[in-house]
Amino acid sequence: MSLTLGVLGGGQLGRMLALAGYPLGMRFIFVDPDPECPAGHVGALIIAPYDDEKALLELANTADIVTTEFENVPASSARFLSEHAPFFPSPEALAMAQDRLAEKSLFRELGIETPRFEPVDSREGLARAVQACGTPSILKTRRLGYDGKGQFVIRHASHVEAGWAALGASVASGVPLILESFVPFVRELSIIAVRSATGEERFYPLVENRHEDGILRLSIAPATGLTTVLQQRAERIARLILTRLNYIGVLTIELFELADGSLIANEMACRVHNSGHWTIEGAECSQFENHIRAVMGLPLGSTAPRGHCAMINLIGSTPAIETLARLDGAHVHLYGKAPRQGRKLGHVTITRTTAEERNESCAQILAALNAHSTLSCANS
Amino acid sequence: MSLTLGVLGGGQLGRMLALAGYPLGMRFIFVDPDPECPAGHVGALIIAPYDDEKALLELANTADIVTTEFENVPASSARFLSEHAPFFPSPEALAMAQDRLAEKSLFRELGIETPRFEPVDSREGLARAVQACGTPSILKTRRLGYDGKGQFVIRHASHVEAGWAALGASVASGVPLILESFVPFVRELSIIAVRSATGEERFYPLVENRHEDGILRLSIAPATGLTTVLQQRAERIARLILTRLNYIGVLTIELFELADGSLIANEMACRVHNSGHWTIEGAECSQFENHIRAVMGLPLGSTAPRGHCAMINLIGSTPAIETLARLDGAHVHLYGKAPRQGRKLGHVTITRTTAEERNESCAQILAALNAHSTLSCANS
Repeated sequence: MSLTLGVLGGGQLGRMLALAGYPLGMRFIFVDPDPECPAGHVGALIIAPYDDEKALLELANTADIVTTEFENVPASSARFLSEHAPFFPSPEALAMAQDRLAEKSLFRELGIETPRFEPVDSREGLARAVQACGTPSILKTRRLGYDGKGQFVIRHASHVEAGWAALGASVASGVPLILESFVPFVRELSIIAVRSATGEERFYPLVENRHEDGILRLSIAPATGLTTVLQQRAERIARLILTRLNYIGVLTIELFELADGSLIANEMACRVHNSGHWTIEGAECSQFENHIRAVMGLPLGSTAPRGHCAMINLIGSTPAIETLARLDGAHVHLYGKAPRQGRKLGHVTITRTTAEERNESCAQILAALNAHSTLSCANS
Repeated sequence: MSLTLGVLGGGQLGRMLALAGYPLGMRFIFVDPDPECPAGHVGALIIAPYDDEKALLELANTADIVTTEFENVPASSARFLSEHAPFFPSPEALAMAQDRLAEKSLFRELGIETPRFEPVDSREGLARAVQACGTPSILKTRRLGYDGKGQFVIRHASHVEAGWAALGASVASGVPLILESFVPFVRELSIIAVRSATGEERFYPLVENRHEDGILRLSIAPATGLTTVLQQRAERIARLILTRLNYIGVLTIELFELADGSLIANEMACRVHNSGHWTIEGAECSQFENHIRAVMGLPLGSTAPRGHCAMINLIGSTPAIETLARLDGAHVHLYGKAPRQGRKLGHVTITRTTAEERNESCAQILAALNAHSTLSCANS
């Protein structure tokens, strides 16, 4: 009677998928190597590495449909799962998003603006790439980077040596590099898009994201002063990618906005995204529920916002639950993870009728959380 | 690190408690005799009768705090649990709400208007009670009735024999009866109140409830045309009971509104309530989260509504999930229960900016669900 969704990965994204899917009458099973992973608290868990074929087969056989909640699914696991169950998004889409070179080549092929980029496979190649991309530019691992990890900023041509010293070993270990020119953006945005197995598409309003130390700290949704023109630009980009990949599920695209209002695609994630957490209370249908609807081929839910929202990440440590519960009108989301520096442990969202009220509440909550003093909804 | 809430009962109310509590970082364990109970899909489950002391001990030892999600907790189980763990609401409150005579005597003692009532323990007692209460009046079992079960309407004094024939056997089996005078109400309302272990109290706006065949079908929140005066009358009633019982958790009071706007207390339920399901999307903090906050002694969340809401119960059978997912702007909640006549299988809620928009959406959804044609937000 009830359908079971299998999920590769048992982190907080999987946990929130389950919490969104239970009201649809679904059941959930996860594969994760960590017996204490967040999703294991709320659904069935197979404790195994992501490439354990026995575990993957059990997942595929138990579940009606299989999806993933993290980006770096081993290619062999994605292929194996797609051979044994309906598996979304496709292994091709996952592979594309895992490799910054493939991803940016896709953007270029589709006529989507993206930073200049050059593959880097050697010290000499890095020198040539710096010539081509100019400075400043950013040397990155092509795969397995996240939250700013595996990156080195090359401010002058003379930094080639230091850049190679920092990341060159990655090439030898099988993960090649890419150099990307630095984009003088005025703000970072993201668009959460969703496309169902029936081809239906929906888009959430653009979100404005504030990072610190490479980690998302604050999302503002809809982005401050969002215009129809800007939203349409972002949706055009998302639609090109969804269509080209025949994509099924939630797809997130991170964008840079330039001073002239143009958008530059930075990267994409084939999954629900931290910058979409505000949708749980802040949109008619959350990104989590819409991902589930998409992979099940159900009609998608409304992506309309329910007000002006902010999402604040709780990173490294969390205040006492009493402190969080006392935050007026805030919605608390803890992931059940042990504290550790730089670790995303939870988030708090607020939804208000006006942007001004949202900014005021956000400032109060940031103050109560002792968050970094430069963080604010209003300082873009 | 994370606290575990133990819950006696694993029905849909327990399921929704867990879904509300996971974002607070909590864990859940339930006791229920049904291995397929709704809460067992989303949390740990001890399969055992409600009065199995071994199971109750395991619940008390595993959980930090214990609560219940159904009314008819055996008195011995409530006492046992309260001796082995912090258990809320208290066995005294539960016992009071389980017995219609004790409940109505409490209302009377507190000066709260309630229908005239008389205990009935014999055929002769019934005849005397009908003399005292007049007709029409309603003969009810004092305990174990729900959704209109265990009731007989006495329209004339000549119906005493038929009433006794219908329910008299209950007395012999240890469940005495009560006769209540019929109240010529204009509508049925309920107030969901919550009081925390610290004594903090909050009240949701009054809800208007439509029953069919004794089962709640539709709730409208806030109640149509709700005035401050009416809300204050209801809060006064709730506050008297919360204080008198030193109550901890969510308490629901069902009320009749008379033509002159006065309120008559009909009954109370020591738990989250079907008429509060709209709070999941429709209030800042849901009844489920506030019950958890209350029993944990945390600051309570805001009970402010987020618009004009309606909740429609799905009873006996549910439309295909595709049909439910297509309902524009509706939030679907399925409990994972097998279909059976008269069984609550799920509910749908809508939240709109104005009462008119809510009424229009509600009418569309009722039509799509093929609900009984007399049901509507507007026909009060």
